[in-house]
Amino acid sequence: MESNKKYVIGLDFGTDSCRALVVDTYTGREMATGVSFYPRWKAGLYCDAHNNRYRQHPLDYIESMTEAVHIALSDLKEEEIASICGLCFDTTGSTPALTDKAGMPLALCPEFAEEPDAMFILWKDHTAVREAEQINALINKRNLDYLLYEGGTYSSEWVWSKVLHIINTNVAIKDAAYAWVEHCDWMTGLVTGNTIPEQIFRSRCAAGHKAMWHASWCLPSGEVLEELNPALKEMLPHLFTETHTSDTKAGELTHEWADRLGLPQGIAVAVGALDAHMGAVGASVAPGILTRIMGTSTCDIMVAGKDEVGGRCIKGICGQVDGSVLPGFIGFEAGQSAFGDIYAWFRKMLAWTLKDIPEGEARQKVLEGMLVELTREAQDMEPSEDGVVALDWMNGRRTPDADQNVKGAVVGLTLGTSAPEIFRALVEATAFGSRRIVEHMKGQGLRIDSVNAIGGISKKAPFVMQTLADVLDMPIRVVRSEQTCALGAAMFAAVAAGVYKDINEATRHMGSDIEAEYRPDEKRALIYEKLYKKYLELAKLAETIN
Amino acid sequence: MESNKKYVIGLDFGTDSCRALVVDTYTGREMATGVSFYPRWKAGLYCDAHNNRYRQHPLDYIESMTEAVHIALSDLKEEEIASICGLCFDTTGSTPALTDKAGMPLALCPEFAEEPDAMFILWKDHTAVREAEQINALINKRNLDYLLYEGGTYSSEWVWSKVLHIINTNVAIKDAAYAWVEHCDWMTGLVTGNTIPEQIFRSRCAAGHKAMWHASWCLPSGEVLEELNPALKEMLPHLFTETHTSDTKAGELTHEWADRLGLPQGIAVAVGALDAHMGAVGASVAPGILTRIMGTSTCDIMVAGKDEVGGRCIKGICGQVDGSVLPGFIGFEAGQSAFGDIYAWFRKMLAWTLKDIPEGEARQKVLEGMLVELTREAQDMEPSEDGVVALDWMNGRRTPDADQNVKGAVVGLTLGTSAPEIFRALVEATAFGSRRIVEHMKGQGLRIDSVNAIGGISKKAPFVMQTLADVLDMPIRVVRSEQTCALGAAMFAAVAAGVYKDINEATRHMGSDIEAEYRPDEKRALIYEKLYKKYLELAKLAETIN
Repeated sequence: MESNKKYVIGLDFGTDSCRALVVDTYTGREMATGVSFYPRWKAGLYCDAHNNRYRQHPLDYIESMTEAVHIALSDLKEEEIASICGLCFDTTGSTPALTDKAGMPLALCPEFAEEPDAMFILWKDHTAVREAEQINALINKRNLDYLLYEGGTYSSEWVWSKVLHIINTNVAIKDAAYAWVEHCDWMTGLVTGNTIPEQIFRSRCAAGHKAMWHASWCLPSGEVLEELNPALKEMLPHLFTETHTSDTKAGELTHEWADRLGLPQGIAVAVGALDAHMGAVGASVAPGILTRIMGTSTCDIMVAGKDEVGGRCIKGICGQVDGSVLPGFIGFEAGQSAFGDIYAWFRKMLAWTLKDIPEGEARQKVLEGMLVELTREAQDMEPSEDGVVALDWMNGRRTPDADQNVKGAVVGLTLGTSAPEIFRALVEATAFGSRRIVEHMKGQGLRIDSVNAIGGISKKAPFVMQTLADVLDMPIRVVRSEQTCALGAAMFAAVAAGVYKDINEATRHMGSDIEAEYRPDEKRALIYEKLYKKYLELAKLAETIN
Repeated sequence: MESNKKYVIGLDFGTDSCRALVVDTYTGREMATGVSFYPRWKAGLYCDAHNNRYRQHPLDYIESMTEAVHIALSDLKEEEIASICGLCFDTTGSTPALTDKAGMPLALCPEFAEEPDAMFILWKDHTAVREAEQINALINKRNLDYLLYEGGTYSSEWVWSKVLHIINTNVAIKDAAYAWVEHCDWMTGLVTGNTIPEQIFRSRCAAGHKAMWHASWCLPSGEVLEELNPALKEMLPHLFTETHTSDTKAGELTHEWADRLGLPQGIAVAVGALDAHMGAVGASVAPGILTRIMGTSTCDIMVAGKDEVGGRCIKGICGQVDGSVLPGFIGFEAGQSAFGDIYAWFRKMLAWTLKDIPEGEARQKVLEGMLVELTREAQDMEPSEDGVVALDWMNGRRTPDADQNVKGAVVGLTLGTSAPEIFRALVEATAFGSRRIVEHMKGQGLRIDSVNAIGGISKKAPFVMQTLADVLDMPIRVVRSEQTCALGAAMFAAVAAGVYKDINEATRHMGSDIEAEYRPDEKRALIYEKLYKKYLELAKLAETIN
């Protein structure tokens, strides 16, 4: 029996930690898991929150990956470990690093070991705001198509803005940089022994959503890159024209990495992808289902058949890429720049009154109790057409029509307005923001029948989930797996290893099912129908003020 | 020497207490003062905050007046008491009561002693919202002039709304009611032995600002009152056509009341007026000076020569009445429905986090410390064009264009916005609201050269006062006297007693001077110039949402 088993391993690199998940390919059962926090990141190194600079050292990734895999494997018998036949990575993104000729991040060279600009630039790093503006201005001026499939606006969170920022501001790094690599591709390249920039397998998902890659033009032209910075043009020949979906085998685990990780040598390694997209796959994404990764912010993933999309490009979202989620389908990415973060902000604002309680366990307990109590009181109120209405742009707006400069608002305040009332309005505002995304996509012809939710909020915040169901007037299903990103990666590993012929077959056997469903309340849905109109008005008006 | 002295007494009825102030007419010196809190009101009787019902028993007024006068007199020598030659009242308003044929509030009849509808209906009682709407609708439908000098909208805080509400909803009171009286007039009538509705001296100030009285039409016609409620028409013959400015002697202190109060019998009693208007007189109001009574809300008083006004009617304020402040001048009233109340609201909202601290001294101390600390932190921030902007309509809007239904707002929120930042925005918002009133009046041709401030905020909140100076870009002067309302009444008492030939002469001798001046900071004024535009935009937009 045991010898018949085929296990795969998904490696999920989040913002703070690496998670290794071993999955049984036949049953989809999650057999073992290990988590390891990035040590330098945890110590606060290389970051400057005040200036929105967030960098991660490549050694953090290597060390955490090694530890996470070791932890996971420690729960398995030897023959189970021997049955592991595939591996695949998902990471945050766009999280690029500048590399040398060998494709190694410059921070691995001794002279740049402590240089933040030589490290991976985390997705949420916003140091490249000016460069994003520069890129958008140039593309608009020349009326180029490069943003057609990336929502119309290039973000400061994406690779070209970040790379441009570094070479604009750090001469030593500019002189040393030969190419750039996305985190998910570097991991794959590293463990398959193929990091050479010109040869490394590039993820369709990362390149299509973040690097303006499209089959019809590949990367932006040298002429355009040159106008941004001549050094960018010099990099172009070291980059890529081809990209790959994650059902592609990128290579095999090298002897060295098999040793370091304790995995069988030569197992298949699939092309990596971004975490949210992999998460949707783990959550059994299919056309008609909006998969939402709900946490501090949301990432919303959809797929649609090419026939359904019919060559149209969906405006104002974060990208539309052939094969970025499921090979053969168009993948769509959208999202809210702040979701749970808004509740956390309100708590922090209120907690100004608790300045005298020193940092520590006691304070933490009070803070945790606060959201519980706000929820309890807010839940007891009924939504009212006359009540407080909030706008969820405290961290700008991602979808529709990304704009980092818009801001949040709270209106309808009276001398009787209480903290739980404002909290309720904030919860409703995040739900209204969600509805706006759903209507934006439906309005452009995409079919959305139901919502599948994954991520911390979906498991821990029933009041938020019920409000979302009421506001969307749509059932919301909570996906059972708590590690859908790693699971999605594991599913692709199974395809790359040849256990399944394609991801659809893998999904049938391995994709997570549903553990709970929130159904809309008819009466509240009617009131929210009216409040949502107020939200839209507020959104329209706020844009003219901000 | 002593026998040459001439003292007068001003009696100021505020929301919570009665204050007696004895003033030396020659020097303006405040010789003695006494304060007494209304006992039934303090015990919370007859009120229902949830339904905005605020009633005061006439016995509260009588008892507190008696006690306050006794306290004040206890500080004076016998010959000083003997030198008191005049008396005058100011009260809140519109604070009317329904009366019997003798002009006594119905609550003084045994059968209505505990009936809230038989008592004085305090200015801030909002039970008559529907009736105010009814009155406005009728006046608009018939295209009548009655609101020409009351800002265009009749308020639920004013006498006709309140009287209509009571007779609409309480049959027993309706059947017993013969007439109505304003608090300030009843006090005067009571101590001069003349409360008969048809004969009592009616204050120009109260009637002109609150009862749609105007020299050209007197009170609203019987036909109009009948359409509102036939019982109102029946009352009309028991009411008045004439009104009087406060330089008029209404009568003399009766033997009975001289005994009860311990004052000389037969001294002159001047016609009463509303507190804010008297306060402006105490603060030495003159054309070109905007006098602001700054507390939980603001009341803003202006006077202008008839030539300056030239028959124009200033739109969107709370009233314009010939002689309501200074006889011979047009008096204007405007105001903000919430000022200090907005800071108190924010504190209360934040204090949700302190639910566990029981009511009591310890809690009170924390709450008091909170505003001090919010102020300290807010003061350390510099205003920024990119910052939070708030709208000060948490209690509706009084001026310009009164509207109880509009609400407050806070925009420009980010995940980094702190409680002191919001507090600062709220302080700025109250200052912007002030500026809007100033510009509204200036825009209609009234001259405003400087601002004189009285009331708690003007003395206790230097950060608020400095912000107001910066936002108005105008010096703000703080009036020295802490009891300008009672002082103003005392000044009219001196005129009624014949010590001075008119209020101008009384002002020269008795009016309060200035104790401090806030000068605008040039740099901040420039930034506020821009932020004020944002405030105006926000105000415009909020109106379309609320």
